[in-house]
Amino acid sequence: MPNAGVLETFPTPAHSPFVIEHVVEEFTSVCPVTGHPDFGTITIRFEPRTAAQGGVCVELKSLKLYMQSFRNEGIYYEAVTNRIRDDLASAMKPAWMLVRTDWRGRGGIRSTIRATSGEVPAAWSM
Amino acid sequence: MPNAGVLETFPTPAHSPFVIEHVVEEFTSVCPVTGHPDFGTITIRFEPRTAAQGGVCVELKSLKLYMQSFRNEGIYYEAVTNRIRDDLASAMKPAWMLVRTDWRGRGGIRSTIRATSGEVPAAWSM
Amino acid sequence: MPNAGVLETFPTPAHSPFVIEHVVEEFTSVCPVTGHPDFGTITIRFEPRTAAQGGVCVELKSLKLYMQSFRNEGIYYEAVTNRIRDDLASAMKPAWMLVRTDWRGRGGIRSTIRATSGEVPAAWSM
Amino acid sequence: MPNAGVLETFPTPAHSPFVIEHVVEEFTSVCPVTGHPDFGTITIRFEPRTAAQGGVCVELKSLKLYMQSFRNEGIYYEAVTNRIRDDLASAMKPAWMLVRTDWRGRGGIRSTIRATSGEVPAAWSM
Amino acid sequence: MPNAGVLETFPTPAHSPFVIEHVVEEFTSVCPVTGHPDFGTITIRFEPRTAAQGGVCVELKSLKLYMQSFRNEGIYYEAVTNRIRDDLASAMKPAWMLVRTDWRGRGGIRSTIRATSGEVPAAWSM
Amino acid sequence: MPNAGVLETFPTPAHSPFVIEHVVEEFTSVCPVTGHPDFGTITIRFEPRTAAQGGVCVELKSLKLYMQSFRNEGIYYEAVTNRIRDDLASAMKPAWMLVRTDWRGRGGIRSTIRATSGEVPAAWSM
Amino acid sequence: MPNAGVLETFPTPAHSPFVIEHVVEEFTSVCPVTGHPDFGTITIRFEPRTAAQGGVCVELKSLKLYMQSFRNEGIYYEAVTNRIRDDLASAMKPAWMLVRTDWRGRGGIRSTIRATSGEVPAAWSM
Amino acid sequence: MPNAGVLETFPTPAHSPFVIEHVVEEFTSVCPVTGHPDFGTITIRFEPRTAAQGGVCVELKSLKLYMQSFRNEGIYYEAVTNRIRDDLASAMKPAWMLVRTDWRGRGGIRSTIRATSGEVPAAWSM
Amino acid sequence: MPNAGVLETFPTPAHSPFVIEHVVEEFTSVCPVTGHPDFGTITIRFEPRTAAQGGVCVELKSLKLYMQSFRNEGIYYEAVTNRIRDDLASAMKPAWMLVRTDWRGRGGIRSTIRATSGEVPAAWSM
Amino acid sequence: MPNAGVLETFPTPAHSPFVIEHVVEEFTSVCPVTGHPDFGTITIRFEPRTAAQGGVCVELKSLKLYMQSFRNEGIYYEAVTNRIRDDLASAMKPAWMLVRTDWRGRGGIRSTIRATSGEVPAAWSM
Repeated sequence: MPNAGVLETFPTPAHSPFVIEHVVEEFTSVCPVTGHPDFGTITIRFEPRTAAQGGVCVELKSLKLYMQSFRNEGIYYEAVTNRIRDDLASAMKPAWMLVRTDWRGRGGIRSTIRATSGEVPAAWSM
Repeated sequence: MPNAGVLETFPTPAHSPFVIEHVVEEFTSVCPVTGHPDFGTITIRFEPRTAAQGGVCVELKSLKLYMQSFRNEGIYYEAVTNRIRDDLASAMKPAWMLVRTDWRGRGGIRSTIRATSGEVPAAWSM
Repeated sequence: MPNAGVLETFPTPAHSPFVIEHVVEEFTSVCPVTGHPDFGTITIRFEPRTAAQGGVCVELKSLKLYMQSFRNEGIYYEAVTNRIRDDLASAMKPAWMLVRTDWRGRGGIRSTIRATSGEVPAAWSM
Repeated sequence: MPNAGVLETFPTPAHSPFVIEHVVEEFTSVCPVTGHPDFGTITIRFEPRTAAQGGVCVELKSLKLYMQSFRNEGIYYEAVTNRIRDDLASAMKPAWMLVRTDWRGRGGIRSTIRATSGEVPAAWSM
Repeated sequence: MPNAGVLETFPTPAHSPFVIEHVVEEFTSVCPVTGHPDFGTITIRFEPRTAAQGGVCVELKSLKLYMQSFRNEGIYYEAVTNRIRDDLASAMKPAWMLVRTDWRGRGGIRSTIRATSGEVPAAWSM
Repeated sequence: MPNAGVLETFPTPAHSPFVIEHVVEEFTSVCPVTGHPDFGTITIRFEPRTAAQGGVCVELKSLKLYMQSFRNEGIYYEAVTNRIRDDLASAMKPAWMLVRTDWRGRGGIRSTIRATSGEVPAAWSM
Repeated sequence: MPNAGVLETFPTPAHSPFVIEHVVEEFTSVCPVTGHPDFGTITIRFEPRTAAQGGVCVELKSLKLYMQSFRNEGIYYEAVTNRIRDDLASAMKPAWMLVRTDWRGRGGIRSTIRATSGEVPAAWSM
Repeated sequence: MPNAGVLETFPTPAHSPFVIEHVVEEFTSVCPVTGHPDFGTITIRFEPRTAAQGGVCVELKSLKLYMQSFRNEGIYYEAVTNRIRDDLASAMKPAWMLVRTDWRGRGGIRSTIRATSGEVPAAWSM
Repeated sequence: MPNAGVLETFPTPAHSPFVIEHVVEEFTSVCPVTGHPDFGTITIRFEPRTAAQGGVCVELKSLKLYMQSFRNEGIYYEAVTNRIRDDLASAMKPAWMLVRTDWRGRGGIRSTIRATSGEVPAAWSM
Repeated sequence: MPNAGVLETFPTPAHSPFVIEHVVEEFTSVCPVTGHPDFGTITIRFEPRTAAQGGVCVELKSLKLYMQSFRNEGIYYEAVTNRIRDDLASAMKPAWMLVRTDWRGRGGIRSTIRATSGEVPAAWSM
């Protein structure tokens, strides 16, 4: 089940503006109604707070394990997106963050969900 | 015939900014003049009102059935687009919504129609 | 319902080897079990018999009407493919013919079915 | 020769913001200097005035005939673009309109011309 | 765990040559060494024996459930490919069959495995 | 109207095997039934006879003018293809030749026609 | 050597806003250090002043000859870009102009240079 | 090891606005934890200060050598990005600069990092 | 330096025809003349001998380490290709094997080298 | 002017079957009639004779200089192709060789010319 406890962070190495984007291309969870698997791509885009503010970045291997913890969870698209935004915002307290989930879809309908934390600059909001 | 009655909604799970996009890749209706079928892709993009405001999201299976209800309807591109915008805006009362229809076209002319409800942020208007 | 009666032909204009391919990009029928629509692309590839042999070609507008006659028919992928092969082979008696159907699919599975009549040369069999 | 007289319109069906885009993929005219044919794609994007303002949309079949009327006309890229903008703006009096012509080009130079009427919002100007 | 028991078949509807291809775009299993998930696409291509020979086709929904039964199985690429070939060849006894698995890979190495049953014609062997 | 008289040739410069392919990306003629323009791409692939055999190649500018001579001709896809094959085979008497026409199509049906002269090697026949 | 003297212009045909873009896909000059050829694509985007202001457009054939005049010139990427901007701005005195050069590069490094004249609107600056 | 000492510059040739972009398509360094190589693409985008301000541009061959100096360095994505930004900003003192690194990734996660110096205009910030 | 000693194998799991393809997308070595790095993609395609013949497959992690052992080796394209073919053929003694190397190239020339062991079926030789 | 004298070779390093392909992406010569530059891509594919037969490979830097020697030569597509085939076949005496030239074309017509030396296997002849 989704496990934010595996997330690890490290101090930001930057003293200047700095944006990070991770694209998790192999995400799968389970539809809570039908029990069929869902497949999607998760994009995480954020600006860590500065070193002076105690800013941190998420460690990649821990991010992978966190994402794998959804594998057998029955959970809706919208809930996945908000859950990841909440867990990562809580772990990193970034200046701003966007979480975007692109789902392969079912029955000829593809879906994309975006959730944000803080003020995402317009250029980064899609 | 188009049947907004099949649309179902569920309460938004989010307490923070949140945008949803559904792309219906298999839409077909009928040209009211020639009787030939039209084929297109329907994109629905919206921001649900917040949970505090009673915001809701459209349920995907009901959205599919709603889209299928146009299958044998004789109706113009422009009317399809405005009808879907009206029906979904009525069912969800979103903060804002964009409905875009991309038609495969006839006689070497492809068409795209966009209709909106509320104030669509510029970054989302295409 | 599928109606081979609308198919019309015209005499082949050629005295030399000659291959025709029509790709119907907007085909839809209905799944006989779920009642949901299926969407696909139909490729028809054939060599008409020569003029001396009384060879004929299918007329394009009649082919379009024939394809539209499947619109509300409940019929499996395999049956659509074999039915079209049978109807067209019967109407044209070509030297050889390949009918290929590519379906958008359901539940993450896309399907392609190929049925033939006569000896399709290897270079044309995919 | 270009014939704006064939253009027909119908009243806008919309009471809300609404943008239409038609892409004419098969346009051809003739170079007035060399007599060789030019080939291009014509994009027409506009917002009809509202129903209350007497807004109208261009009828698609008439648009096709209008475009075909340039077939044997000797006319420069720039003049085609401005002529179409003038004729359509005159026929529809839209809130705003963009006409973009993309030419396959000659001698290794491809060209794109854009002409506008009214205030085209920035998001739509490319 | 992989469960061939869920596979269902139906009699082939064809009296003439006939080839079927199913592409399962959402397959996942688990690496038996690292425990990390593997993601791939499975292509199944076969010619059912004729109706006179008692030929059968695999039913699509049962194929989906069969594929899902690998979800939490620790199994190598090569074993997945051979297992699927064995299970499907056993269930359908096709004239010939090709199973191809395309894996997203790890550490910068993508892999493709192909296993066959019977004599696959050269044109179909890639 | 189609005018093979404008075709010019020059002696082949080659003493060894040699294949030429010209792709005319901007071809247009007129549908003899509806009067609407057709748009397509014409591929001409041939092996000139050797210099010792008096082999010739078609001159490119004359080929362009020949193609332009179809501009206002009412003629079917099949007849265009066979006419070009006949005119070019007559002008060049090549070892072998393939003429392939790819049409943008109408009503959701794209067509490709291939006509040949002499024995086209299998690798070149698509 | 680069020769702005070959550039010719003609009066703008437009009384309304109007943007022109020419993409020269076949540009080559020579590296002044190594003597090896450089290959690139040159994009010229500008808004001519209005007819009332005496606005002019560059004539396409003269633009081609101008571009060819760089063929054997030893000149850096940056200097090519600024030189073209200067020559064309001088010849046309446009409302604004952007010159962008995209170079195929050397040693695994591709370069793009952009130079402007006047106030280029943000939507056109990339 | 990363060696900013190899960077060379030359005076900017421009008296007008001017933006340079170099895309280093073949970058490799080493993961400091696992010792496995990382592969990425480095984009450097900047506006040199004007000639009057003593602006300079980085010389391409020296940029290549600088990039190669990371080949056997154990260093994180984030540190590479900030290090390159610091070294190049120090060598050129540009009006503004963006350094973007796109990494092929590991374990199904691709990453992009962006670091800036000065005020990057919004149109250039992605 | 290239180290075939790291290669490990495991017994083939198959009793039927079976082809394996690994695509190493991140390969780098060094040009022995200039000292500059080369970047390429290595494709390895082979049919293991059967289990009865003692056939083996290369283990993926060991293949990765083997490929990394070329990182700082000065070696030509042709020698890399033949060396990998020799080392892998020696380690696996496959029924047949193809090694293909695709190099990003230098000075505008991309290269592909193919070396084989045993009789590669025609369908697999490209 | 084309200068085969710059071509250099080195002994083949291979004792087993071995095919080399070089793709020269930046080739330019001049049309002998109009004086306008032609741009194309040159593909050279060959199998060197074995080491025992004294087989040689063309050295890449010398190949680049040879290709550059056509830069200001007025020469037809067909003659370029046959000239390169003759010069390289003479310099390397390969088991077989294919030279393919793909030209960007003029007036909407793209051309591809292929010339060979020895017996090119069918799989390599396109």
